[in-house]
Amino acid sequence: MTNGVPRVGMVGAGQLARMTHQAAISLGLSLRVLAESAQDGAATVVTDVELGAPDDLSALLRFAKGCDVVTFDHEHVPQEHLLALEDTGVAVRPGSAALLFAQDKLAQRTRLAELGIPVPAFAPVTGPQDVARFGEAHGWPVVLKAVRGGYDGRGVWMLNEAPQQLPDRPVYVEQRVPLIHELAIQVARRPSGSVRAWPVVETVQQEGICVEVVAPAPRLSPALATEAERLGVTLAEQLGVTGVLAVELFEAPGGLLVNELAMRPHNSGHWSIEGSTTSQFHQHLRAVLDWPLGDPTPLTPVSVMANLLGGEHTELATSLPAALEAVPEAHVHLYGKDPRPGRKLGHVTVLGDDVVDTRERARLAVAILRGDRADDE
Amino acid sequence: MTNGVPRVGMVGAGQLARMTHQAAISLGLSLRVLAESAQDGAATVVTDVELGAPDDLSALLRFAKGCDVVTFDHEHVPQEHLLALEDTGVAVRPGSAALLFAQDKLAQRTRLAELGIPVPAFAPVTGPQDVARFGEAHGWPVVLKAVRGGYDGRGVWMLNEAPQQLPDRPVYVEQRVPLIHELAIQVARRPSGSVRAWPVVETVQQEGICVEVVAPAPRLSPALATEAERLGVTLAEQLGVTGVLAVELFEAPGGLLVNELAMRPHNSGHWSIEGSTTSQFHQHLRAVLDWPLGDPTPLTPVSVMANLLGGEHTELATSLPAALEAVPEAHVHLYGKDPRPGRKLGHVTVLGDDVVDTRERARLAVAILRGDRADDE
Repeated sequence: MTNGVPRVGMVGAGQLARMTHQAAISLGLSLRVLAESAQDGAATVVTDVELGAPDDLSALLRFAKGCDVVTFDHEHVPQEHLLALEDTGVAVRPGSAALLFAQDKLAQRTRLAELGIPVPAFAPVTGPQDVARFGEAHGWPVVLKAVRGGYDGRGVWMLNEAPQQLPDRPVYVEQRVPLIHELAIQVARRPSGSVRAWPVVETVQQEGICVEVVAPAPRLSPALATEAERLGVTLAEQLGVTGVLAVELFEAPGGLLVNELAMRPHNSGHWSIEGSTTSQFHQHLRAVLDWPLGDPTPLTPVSVMANLLGGEHTELATSLPAALEAVPEAHVHLYGKDPRPGRKLGHVTVLGDDVVDTRERARLAVAILRGDRADDE
Repeated sequence: MTNGVPRVGMVGAGQLARMTHQAAISLGLSLRVLAESAQDGAATVVTDVELGAPDDLSALLRFAKGCDVVTFDHEHVPQEHLLALEDTGVAVRPGSAALLFAQDKLAQRTRLAELGIPVPAFAPVTGPQDVARFGEAHGWPVVLKAVRGGYDGRGVWMLNEAPQQLPDRPVYVEQRVPLIHELAIQVARRPSGSVRAWPVVETVQQEGICVEVVAPAPRLSPALATEAERLGVTLAEQLGVTGVLAVELFEAPGGLLVNELAMRPHNSGHWSIEGSTTSQFHQHLRAVLDWPLGDPTPLTPVSVMANLLGGEHTELATSLPAALEAVPEAHVHLYGKDPRPGRKLGHVTVLGDDVVDTRERARLAVAILRGDRADDE
């Protein structure tokens, strides 16, 4: 506590920490971030920055000193360091026991299967013959996935036959699920127990990267929406998650299957900054501090969040005014990164009444920001 | 420009700069503030802080170096320093010529009367006999006002008769207007000309301090709402304001009268952070950068903003969770100040459909934050 204000430490200084800082300012909180570089998106806008890598225990311990709570903008702190942090007495939220299931996908699949949570068929892999056996049993293609560290399409390999050799890292194999849609459900849970869920959203992926989120999911049966919420709440409770939990889901012909877990604010929840009474960043702070949770009700019938991925001609200094001219109601969020093709540079949220129109407005703003099309086209 | 990102400098580091920083982060802007103290509300959350007083020319010049635009969270920079800043070539928005009318109330009254804008009857004062003459002509009581620097009820004296002697600062005298309501209209204007208006709001004052704002003004005829908007737009254009202009209005039996002008984000516009598609802080940044203006449409039928003034028992570290428990949908904004009785420590905004209910929710949250009543009362 600094003058009665809790100090929340966030490991990582990317856009999630940057947007958490904005929420922390409103709540009068003092946010400290552990940044790998002084140029990180959050490091340039937060005053209390400790430089260090998330796998450097001495940096973590230095950073955590004086924090009331430590939380995360990624999953890269090794389990043994999480345990060492917990040993110092600081409140680590989510804790190591929960976070394991966001870090180790094979452990997660195994645990979820034990809990009776629907996941795609999967198997551990120690050699190419395990992949061959799985493909014969479940049909080709299969998906080989890195046990740790894969994201945004990295660490995922689609295979039509058994590989000659395995990637140089631990992997497991999974059934390729015939998708109807991809969905995500976000919930927040306090250490003392209560859980609140935002409405389930539809996510649109291109080459394994989320490009768009529509909230609430517009083409989902009420029964599946209820089921998604039940899965989110059950997972938060059964895994003991504290803070925000994002559950990426496959909508498959047989029902919902869990794809990924993230125990932090997540790209699928950025719409909530403007679209919900309580944003995921405010809610995450409230949850990790064990404060009462906010109201996750949406404010309008539709929110569309579109990610801004860097293009060949992205020059934000000129394209931002052009985008604001074309879509004056767009909520633009830039992450303070130098534009590079494919890099997540920001996002745009548009609220509206109609899915088609709202999506069109969000896409237009992003296309102009990217430099794909001129304002007057 | 820093890496293509415009640097906006804001003179002053109170809550307005603090909330402007939150908006600047979203827009990918780099905000620099000139703070009188490192403990100022914005100085604790902004990375680029220059320390110095707003009447210290060398501090102002040091601060403005490298800024693309300089703007303000108060009116305390003397005219001669504004002119000196303009001479350096930096874009000062609003400029000195406009800002004069927010700094010097007698100049403002004189100019508005010339423009045919309705203001209370007023007269310059050089001695007690001027007050006596004015009271005899317009009736008692009259209001003596400081020409410069009065705010939040300071620099205002209600007189039932001519004073023995005048305050030790320049003053003028004004008719006491029989009020129906107090209102405010906010508009934003770009240097290149376009103007956007938020809906007119009702403000509730206690002892000269704004305690509550209801948006849109719930008891106003459509004709007066249109007239208020016309006044706001006319003033922005005629005075050449750039950025946000707040016009405080009296609703009197004969119609609307202009009370005060502020050429910056203003307490009467805090509701717009959550209640409008474009908040006054985003809009101010867009306007002073001469970027396209955003959509000021409200998101819900009613927004109520209640100011949190420090009470005798204000302990935010304990009262904040209690307030969030009682009013989970409250948008709480704390300004990072040490609680002192009467000090503006923050505000709460609640959105809703019904004025009575929404106001009740906002008042409840503020009462608990203040320590006036327990959560379980």
